[in-house]
Amino acid sequence: MFDMIAFDADDTLWPSETLYVDTKNQLKDLLSRYASREDVEQELIARERSNLSIYGYGIKGFTLSMIETAIGLSKGKITGNEVLKIIGFAKKMLSLEVDLFEHVEDTIYELVTSYPLMIITKGDLLDQERKLSNSGISDCFQFIEIVSEKNEDIYKRVLEKYDIDPGRFLMVGNSLKSDIVPVVAMGGFAVHIPTEVNWVLDEVQLSGDRSDRHFELENLVLLPSLIERLVDE
Amino acid sequence: MFDMIAFDADDTLWPSETLYVDTKNQLKDLLSRYASREDVEQELIARERSNLSIYGYGIKGFTLSMIETAIGLSKGKITGNEVLKIIGFAKKMLSLEVDLFEHVEDTIYELVTSYPLMIITKGDLLDQERKLSNSGISDCFQFIEIVSEKNEDIYKRVLEKYDIDPGRFLMVGNSLKSDIVPVVAMGGFAVHIPTEVNWVLDEVQLSGDRSDRHFELENLVLLPSLIERLVDE
Repeated sequence: MFDMIAFDADDTLWPSETLYVDTKNQLKDLLSRYASREDVEQELIARERSNLSIYGYGIKGFTLSMIETAIGLSKGKITGNEVLKIIGFAKKMLSLEVDLFEHVEDTIYELVTSYPLMIITKGDLLDQERKLSNSGISDCFQFIEIVSEKNEDIYKRVLEKYDIDPGRFLMVGNSLKSDIVPVVAMGGFAVHIPTEVNWVLDEVQLSGDRSDRHFELENLVLLPSLIERLVDE
Repeated sequence: MFDMIAFDADDTLWPSETLYVDTKNQLKDLLSRYASREDVEQELIARERSNLSIYGYGIKGFTLSMIETAIGLSKGKITGNEVLKIIGFAKKMLSLEVDLFEHVEDTIYELVTSYPLMIITKGDLLDQERKLSNSGISDCFQFIEIVSEKNEDIYKRVLEKYDIDPGRFLMVGNSLKSDIVPVVAMGGFAVHIPTEVNWVLDEVQLSGDRSDRHFELENLVLLPSLIERLVDE
């Protein structure tokens, strides 16, 4: 029934948003003499939102938005060494070890015996490749697609490229906006595995009823049995 | 004879390195009270070199390296507003119009009537997509590959993905290191179209004789007749 099962990476296979939250906390500490934690939070979100169309996703753009936030909230008083600390936060994020979520390794090893698997993820090209390469499971994925956006059009283009019928495609991810809604809209199946911490710019409200091609699971470990059930139907 | 003709983008289809040079000149002006132009040049190259493995290619990483250069050479005295100017340089680069080199449009339109064409380029994902989309010729390319590095291994993987025989593959680009040497090494054909201005980190010396699958042209306009000659041989 499925010719390809695709996975989001950040916050689906390994934690990501919590690392951004940790870094934002360090930024709030660093800027405490210039602004309140809440002002840093709001100003950073505003900068990220306004920069997204020019920087795209990923840590490098996030870092430039952090620096802009620091300059703005300090009214230009931020020092060179403080800016260097922000760049240090980024470099740390860009070199962290990848810790897979519980059950990811077993589940992927189980699925790969029956299905071709791929990754479809956003973010900085090199950073996503680095994380995948460090994950220890990269050999399980036949194709890796690092894309600049995850909308219906991009999914369609990826499926056309590999000649995959949307009705025989299953996407698994933590983001309703990026992994579920566009995939269901183009006729694919999607399994949503929510995370507790979500990026505010990646949130969306579902309009109308949930499609019968949209499933929710609490944990990736439940995916093989859901797929088995779908195939048997 | 060729199942796919692939093009590098930056400095092959449109200018790029000259934009970096312009920005570096603006940086040298900005930092003139802290350091000589030559010191800025050398420090920036050193930062770019040491950051390449963590930031990868593209304007966002270049910008972070410029900021580090400014902080280092000013001994931390750089002001917030000066850092903001550097970010402004980046935003300008990320929104410049794309001006194709002379003859690119005609040559691409001619070749696409006989061959499938693709782009293989490094850089920031979103920025490269933006430039291609603004170029007016993106519909001519069947596949777009934005990669984190251009070495023999990456070319092999791209060709495997599309099931292309290296001996029936031709790459066209301005960089010996990225577009020519790795392609020839894996058995493909490569056409080098040198540019006057090259990035020092993208330079390489050819060791030994030039392969008989490596060609040099002064201008892209000469490509169709070279291909015709190769196919007739």
